[in-house]
Amino acid sequence: MDPQADITAMRRAVELAARGLGATSPNPVVGCVITDASGHPVGEGWHQRAGGPHAEVHALRAAGVLARGGTAYVTLEPCNHTGRTGPCAQALIDAGISRVVYAVGDPNPQATGGADTLRAAGIEVSPGLLADEAEAGNTAWLTSVRRGRPFVRWKYAATLDGRSAAADGTSRWITSAESRADVHRLRAEADAVVVGSGTARTDDPHLAVRGVEGAVQPLRVVVDTEATAVKPGARVLDDAAPTLIAVAEDADTALEPVVRLPRAGRGLSVPALLDALHARGVRSVLLEGGPTLAGSFLAAGAVDQIVGYLAPVLLGAGPHVLADAGITTIADALRLDVTETVRLGPDLRVTAVPTTKGA
Amino acid sequence: MDPQADITAMRRAVELAARGLGATSPNPVVGCVITDASGHPVGEGWHQRAGGPHAEVHALRAAGVLARGGTAYVTLEPCNHTGRTGPCAQALIDAGISRVVYAVGDPNPQATGGADTLRAAGIEVSPGLLADEAEAGNTAWLTSVRRGRPFVRWKYAATLDGRSAAADGTSRWITSAESRADVHRLRAEADAVVVGSGTARTDDPHLAVRGVEGAVQPLRVVVDTEATAVKPGARVLDDAAPTLIAVAEDADTALEPVVRLPRAGRGLSVPALLDALHARGVRSVLLEGGPTLAGSFLAAGAVDQIVGYLAPVLLGAGPHVLADAGITTIADALRLDVTETVRLGPDLRVTAVPTTKGA
Repeated sequence: MDPQADITAMRRAVELAARGLGATSPNPVVGCVITDASGHPVGEGWHQRAGGPHAEVHALRAAGVLARGGTAYVTLEPCNHTGRTGPCAQALIDAGISRVVYAVGDPNPQATGGADTLRAAGIEVSPGLLADEAEAGNTAWLTSVRRGRPFVRWKYAATLDGRSAAADGTSRWITSAESRADVHRLRAEADAVVVGSGTARTDDPHLAVRGVEGAVQPLRVVVDTEATAVKPGARVLDDAAPTLIAVAEDADTALEPVVRLPRAGRGLSVPALLDALHARGVRSVLLEGGPTLAGSFLAAGAVDQIVGYLAPVLLGAGPHVLADAGITTIADALRLDVTETVRLGPDLRVTAVPTTKGA
Repeated sequence: MDPQADITAMRRAVELAARGLGATSPNPVVGCVITDASGHPVGEGWHQRAGGPHAEVHALRAAGVLARGGTAYVTLEPCNHTGRTGPCAQALIDAGISRVVYAVGDPNPQATGGADTLRAAGIEVSPGLLADEAEAGNTAWLTSVRRGRPFVRWKYAATLDGRSAAADGTSRWITSAESRADVHRLRAEADAVVVGSGTARTDDPHLAVRGVEGAVQPLRVVVDTEATAVKPGARVLDDAAPTLIAVAEDADTALEPVVRLPRAGRGLSVPALLDALHARGVRSVLLEGGPTLAGSFLAAGAVDQIVGYLAPVLLGAGPHVLADAGITTIADALRLDVTETVRLGPDLRVTAVPTTKGA
C-alpha cells in the first residue's frame, strides 16, 4: 500500500491500455497490472480486441498462482457481466486477489457493479487512482458511452494562414513527413475515417492506415450525398480496408456498400450518420475533411476534439480548412481550449477541445 | 578568466542591452558589464537612447577607479568613431581596462575597428562570446545594417482556421488580453508601426503603445495609397505618437505629414516605403496588416520575421489574415522555420522566419 508503488503500477496499466487503441471497439481500452502479496509485479495484460479476453484475464494468466494475496491495478472498473467473456470481477475473486485498485468507474449500465461484487467477496477496493490519465486514454470510448454516438476527432492540416491547398489546388505537401505519419497513427486509433465528397472528388484518397505496425484498418467512410463523387475504381473501394458510402435516401447509385441517410441542409444529417456508424460498432471517428463536411459537423456540435497540423508555410490564397460552420459574428465563434501543442518536425500539432459552456 | 564567469557576465550584458529595444534607433542596443581585477562586477550600463552615452560609458562611470585592471563585457564590438559621443574603445583604454570580451563584431563600416584599436593599446580582446544570444537581441538593427532597409516583423492575429474577423467583420476579441498586451510590447520595440488603408478604414486604429512602462512611442505609418482612408479626426492623427501617411505621388490630399511614393501594383512600392522610413531613422518596422499590405510585403521579400497570435477559435467564414502574396501553386509557397512557440493565456504565439533558400 505504498502510494508511490500504487501510482507506478497504475501508470503502467494506463500505458498497457493504450496499446489497444483502435482495436477494441465497441469495447474500451483497458490495462491491468497484478502484483504479488509483497508488491512485486507478476502479471500484465491489456484488452487487445473485441471478443478476446479482458485485460484482467490476460494479467491473471501471466501471474498464475502468484496472484494469490496480491493486488490488481486496472484502468477501468472490472466488469460484472458475462458477455463474450466471463465477468472479470469473478475471475479476480477466483484468483485470490486481496486488493483491487481501479482508475475509472464503468459508465456502461450493462457492465457496472464490479466493485460491489468484489467488496461483497471481502476484497479491498480503491477507486479513482490516476483517473484523469486513464480517462484521457479512454476518451473516445467514454465519450461514446456518455453521448450515445461515436467520439469525433476532427483532423486538419493547414498553413499558418489557414489554407489547405494553394490557389491552383496543389497541396503535396504542405505538412511534413512526420505530420503525415502521425495522421496514420490517428487513423489506426480510430474505428472509422470520414471524408466528404469534395475530398473524394479532388484527392481520390485511400484512407487506409500505412506504416503502423499491427494496426486494425478503420472503416473508410465517404459522405457522398448525391452519389456522384465515388466512381468505380476509386482507391477507397480497394480491399485494403472496409468501406461505406453514405448517400442520400433518394440518391441513385449502384455502389456497394452504401448507407442511405436523410438529407440536412446541403448534405446529410450528421446525427443520422453518427447513429448509423454507432450501430455498426464504431466508437471513434477521425473526420478528415474537407471544409464543408467539417463545417457541418461543427455546426451540429458533433466534434469532440480538434487536431490541427500547422505547417510553417504561407500561401495567401487557396481553399480554407473550414467552410461554413453557421457562424457569422464573433460572439458566436466556436471557442476551444488547447490541451496540447507538439512540434512534429517543422510543423506544430495543436490539440484542442470545445470550451465547456459556462466554464 | 573563468569561462563560466565570462558567460555569466556576458549574459547579464545581453539582458541589459534588451532594455534599450525600441529606443536607440538608428543605433543598436548594447549592454556592458565591467568587472574589477579580481572578477567582481563593479559597473553595468546599456545604451538607452540615440544621442545618449554608449553602454560602455554608462558602465565605466558606475565602475569608476575600480575598472582599472578589470574586464569589460560588451554585447557589440566597442565603437571606434566619434559620433555624437566619443569612441568607446578610447574610453576603455583611458579607464585602464585590461581585457575586453565582446559578443558580435560591429558590421557598421563607420564604427568598426574598435577591436584593433584596443589591441594596439595592449588590451587583450576576445570576440564571439554568446554571439548568437547577443545577435538575437540585436536582430532588428543587424538586419537593417546588412540589408540597408528596416527590419520588418509581420504580426498577425488569427483563429486556428486563419480568419482575422467573423463574416460580419466583428473581431473583438479573437485573441486574449495577454496576447493584446504582448502586441503593445512589440510596438514598443519597434521604431514604426505600419498598417494599410483597409485597416485604417475598418478599425480606425490608434497604433500607439499602451501599458509598457518607459516605452518610446513608435512612428505610426498608414499606407493610404489613394489618400482616402485616413480622415481628419482619425485616431492615428492624435498627438500620442508621431504619424506619417504614405500616399501615391499623384494622390490628392491635404493631410500632414505625408510621404509621396511611387505606385506598384495596386498599392505603393514596398522598397520605396522602406527606403523612406530608413531615411527617417527607422530601423525596425512592426507590420500590423491588413491582409493586402502583408501580401505586398511578403511578395516583395520584405518580411524578416513573422509573429502569429493564434487563438483557439474557429469561425469557418470571414476575412483572412493574408491576401494575395503572389503565390499560386504549392511549389512557390513561402516556407518558414518556426523559431519559438509560446502559450499566452489561451492563445499560442508562433514566431517564424523565412527559410533560407538552399538551407
